[in-house]
Amino acid sequence: MDYMIGVDIGTTTTKSVLYDMKGKVVAYANSGYQLYQDAPDMAEEDPDDILHAVIEVMGQVMYKSKADEIKGVSFSSAMHSLILMDEADQPLTKAITWADNRAAKYSDELKDNGLGAKIYARTGTPIHPMAPLSKILWLRHEKPELFKKAKKFIDLKTYVFFKLFGVYRMDYSIASATGMFNIFDLKWDQGVLDLLQITEKQLPELVETTASISGIAPRFAELLNISTRTPFIFGASDGVLSNLGVDAIDPGVVAVTIGTSGAVRVTVDKPVVDPDGKLFCYALTKDKWVVGGPVNNGGIVFRWVKDQLFAPERITAEQMQVSTYDILTQIAEKIPAGSDGLLFHPYLGGERAPIWNAYARGSFFGLTRNHTRAHMVRAALEGIVYNLYVVMLTIEKVAGKPKSIQATGGFARSALWRQMLADIFEQPVTIPESFESSCLGAAVLGMYALGYIDNLAAVKDMIGVTDVHKPNSDNFEVYRELLPIWIRISHLLEPEYKEIADFQRKHTK
Amino acid sequence: MDYMIGVDIGTTTTKSVLYDMKGKVVAYANSGYQLYQDAPDMAEEDPDDILHAVIEVMGQVMYKSKADEIKGVSFSSAMHSLILMDEADQPLTKAITWADNRAAKYSDELKDNGLGAKIYARTGTPIHPMAPLSKILWLRHEKPELFKKAKKFIDLKTYVFFKLFGVYRMDYSIASATGMFNIFDLKWDQGVLDLLQITEKQLPELVETTASISGIAPRFAELLNISTRTPFIFGASDGVLSNLGVDAIDPGVVAVTIGTSGAVRVTVDKPVVDPDGKLFCYALTKDKWVVGGPVNNGGIVFRWVKDQLFAPERITAEQMQVSTYDILTQIAEKIPAGSDGLLFHPYLGGERAPIWNAYARGSFFGLTRNHTRAHMVRAALEGIVYNLYVVMLTIEKVAGKPKSIQATGGFARSALWRQMLADIFEQPVTIPESFESSCLGAAVLGMYALGYIDNLAAVKDMIGVTDVHKPNSDNFEVYRELLPIWIRISHLLEPEYKEIADFQRKHTK
Repeated sequence: MDYMIGVDIGTTTTKSVLYDMKGKVVAYANSGYQLYQDAPDMAEEDPDDILHAVIEVMGQVMYKSKADEIKGVSFSSAMHSLILMDEADQPLTKAITWADNRAAKYSDELKDNGLGAKIYARTGTPIHPMAPLSKILWLRHEKPELFKKAKKFIDLKTYVFFKLFGVYRMDYSIASATGMFNIFDLKWDQGVLDLLQITEKQLPELVETTASISGIAPRFAELLNISTRTPFIFGASDGVLSNLGVDAIDPGVVAVTIGTSGAVRVTVDKPVVDPDGKLFCYALTKDKWVVGGPVNNGGIVFRWVKDQLFAPERITAEQMQVSTYDILTQIAEKIPAGSDGLLFHPYLGGERAPIWNAYARGSFFGLTRNHTRAHMVRAALEGIVYNLYVVMLTIEKVAGKPKSIQATGGFARSALWRQMLADIFEQPVTIPESFESSCLGAAVLGMYALGYIDNLAAVKDMIGVTDVHKPNSDNFEVYRELLPIWIRISHLLEPEYKEIADFQRKHTK
Repeated sequence: MDYMIGVDIGTTTTKSVLYDMKGKVVAYANSGYQLYQDAPDMAEEDPDDILHAVIEVMGQVMYKSKADEIKGVSFSSAMHSLILMDEADQPLTKAITWADNRAAKYSDELKDNGLGAKIYARTGTPIHPMAPLSKILWLRHEKPELFKKAKKFIDLKTYVFFKLFGVYRMDYSIASATGMFNIFDLKWDQGVLDLLQITEKQLPELVETTASISGIAPRFAELLNISTRTPFIFGASDGVLSNLGVDAIDPGVVAVTIGTSGAVRVTVDKPVVDPDGKLFCYALTKDKWVVGGPVNNGGIVFRWVKDQLFAPERITAEQMQVSTYDILTQIAEKIPAGSDGLLFHPYLGGERAPIWNAYARGSFFGLTRNHTRAHMVRAALEGIVYNLYVVMLTIEKVAGKPKSIQATGGFARSALWRQMLADIFEQPVTIPESFESSCLGAAVLGMYALGYIDNLAAVKDMIGVTDVHKPNSDNFEVYRELLPIWIRISHLLEPEYKEIADFQRKHTK
């Protein structure tokens, strides 16, 4: 048998799946590690933890195959991480992840002075503390001693490949999420390099996402019991590979993911940016680009509803057993679409797309005496989806009207949410069977890179379908009336987000 | 012994208290009746139900005294009611109460065409469907056959006095809440009469609040076992008499009432109006006027929190027993002042003061993942008090800075709410012992009218004090930071209230 391994380096877990060449899952492994959050807004990982996890999960799935049956290993990775490497190729820092907000002051400055908009227009990365662009600015100003010692500025996947192959190479996809890569020229952006006061030499060599390398360091070949001839494909970011892994690579096919957070993404043929700088545009390959918006507030909001809105006060501790997600969904189901005019903005912890406001906070609007806690549950679910829909509206402007939705993530397990998605987006919603879509995307990209398939579209036959939902016209008419109000309110409240967030920061321990 | 009876004609209950001349309660009775709400926005009462209730509660308290010991009977009454009487002195309508909103279109028109502001500036009654002004306009346009047959336009108390004494007389206080009475001339306003196309003759004769009448119809004298010489004092409205009954008649002493709804009121020497038309100015006597704002959303919001936010979903029916108001207060007490930056606007059913917007709806703002349902409870309580405080800020502009607060109503039973009031208003809060303050106010006004006391200030010795709360500086500093945000948000959301209310009206059964 021939096999392909997809590895997905995530923020808290690295996963690995062994596929046959038809995309069938043969083996799966995952390994978690710590996110260091010792200071406010900090979110770091130890790069060697990641390296060990990658080796571990690869080893675990290979166990089910013979060494020479592994035709390739292809990578997916979380975006936006930054590691500084010194002259001796030793890390000067941990990996500063996308969730780290310490560079906020510098991304705010870029936004305020107008420079950010210009950089975005060339790089396709929204101006945000998550981007290595902002992080390097922050380090240059606030940790000049580290900044000066840095020979290379790399990301987690580059670190892993460096350890395995001794080269600093970054694929176009991960590069396109740094805020430093010109998506039209496919080069590091000279204007950004000048701003950061770094040289191209301090960044990894750029390679295509289909590029591969072999000659793994002998000690790892031994550890893994793998041939040093096995090609490793550099691959791409988890987001764009997830689009591939759910077969959302044709025009108008929208991938909607709601896990803890969420995202809306479509694939286009050429890089595009939007005039307001609110959408990302990241490479899948040179000819396929994924445009979309990431949202912070997905299932995490539902967890809040469960834990806090339905939390047992001390006096009613016995209530807890019954307050499960399933019961909450049953409760929400009894409330009509539109929650009798109760609107919820899900910005419990700031928001990225569509408003890109770290200070945003949640709100309920439209409360009457007829509204119950059950209405709040449904309104919370609807609010999460309204927010994703607003991201879609922005995407529409640069990528055209959607035709259908491929939905994934934890929320796709609930029929109520799936129907809500169909009704609010007014689109048919398909739930692909794909297991670990970023790993599958990585594996399919690997098969394509190595010539096992002619076209990425081969993924269509690998994913299967579990459920299809058609929009219900009664419901979508209700949502059509409420959405403009929901959108206007999100704008009306915008001036007060920072005010209340400042109060909360000051007074909350 | 000498006794004085105070009678208070309320919206759902009439109450009567027998006092000795020191203001001591000797006997109490009450009698309820139906509010007819057969159609949306309708809220009517049968005037004969009220008459019977008045007779019943008077009879019940007289039982404890001898007939010749009753030195007078003095009245308090709900404001804004309207009854049309025909040529044969028979009611053409039920009593249309303050809670009836069917005249909304006409008060909206008066507001929009600018005429309302001019009328308010002469009458001191905010332009609102509650006012007989709006109701007569509505009847003239939509029930012309009734309007044409009307010999007299009167209120509930005038009806009761007409039945007892055969005259149509209305005191300055009730008149000053009709929207048709010129508070500076103490006459029916000719401009309003012209607008309504009615004559002065169609309205009751105006009398001072201290005016009295004797010669009760023999069948009632017999029924009550009372002398026909017993003087009946016309009295005043429940609101202004409540100020008297809690000893809030000195400059700067603010009466704050939170029952189901609420109000903030201060007494001044001369009639005043505010430039925005948001405050009422109603007569207590010719020389004492009460300026203030009525709010719809008081304890009724807390009931919503109890019934809806803590409602048992079908699956957790056993929870209900523990969710009492007391427990909710205990829950709220554990949350710090300011609810960790969670704000609540209590407009569950539209609002009168301070925003006078029938479409207003409730909202929570500032939600983070740290907020619990307990925070919502506290935020709801705080929101009710913020709203009253904003009314106070408006009053300050025309009546000067407050010095202290006399607090009454159901909420005054909770130490937490009392302290919240002190902290948000930054004023010492006193809870007078006064039982049924409007009845006491009526009785004291009666004693004054009949010469048993020289000055209304005699009330000071009658009320007693149960609790005093001083503002806590830690808390009021927190509230001072949040209040500007709370106020700005209430303005920001204003354009959307009608939108969501229209949706709710359309879709909710």
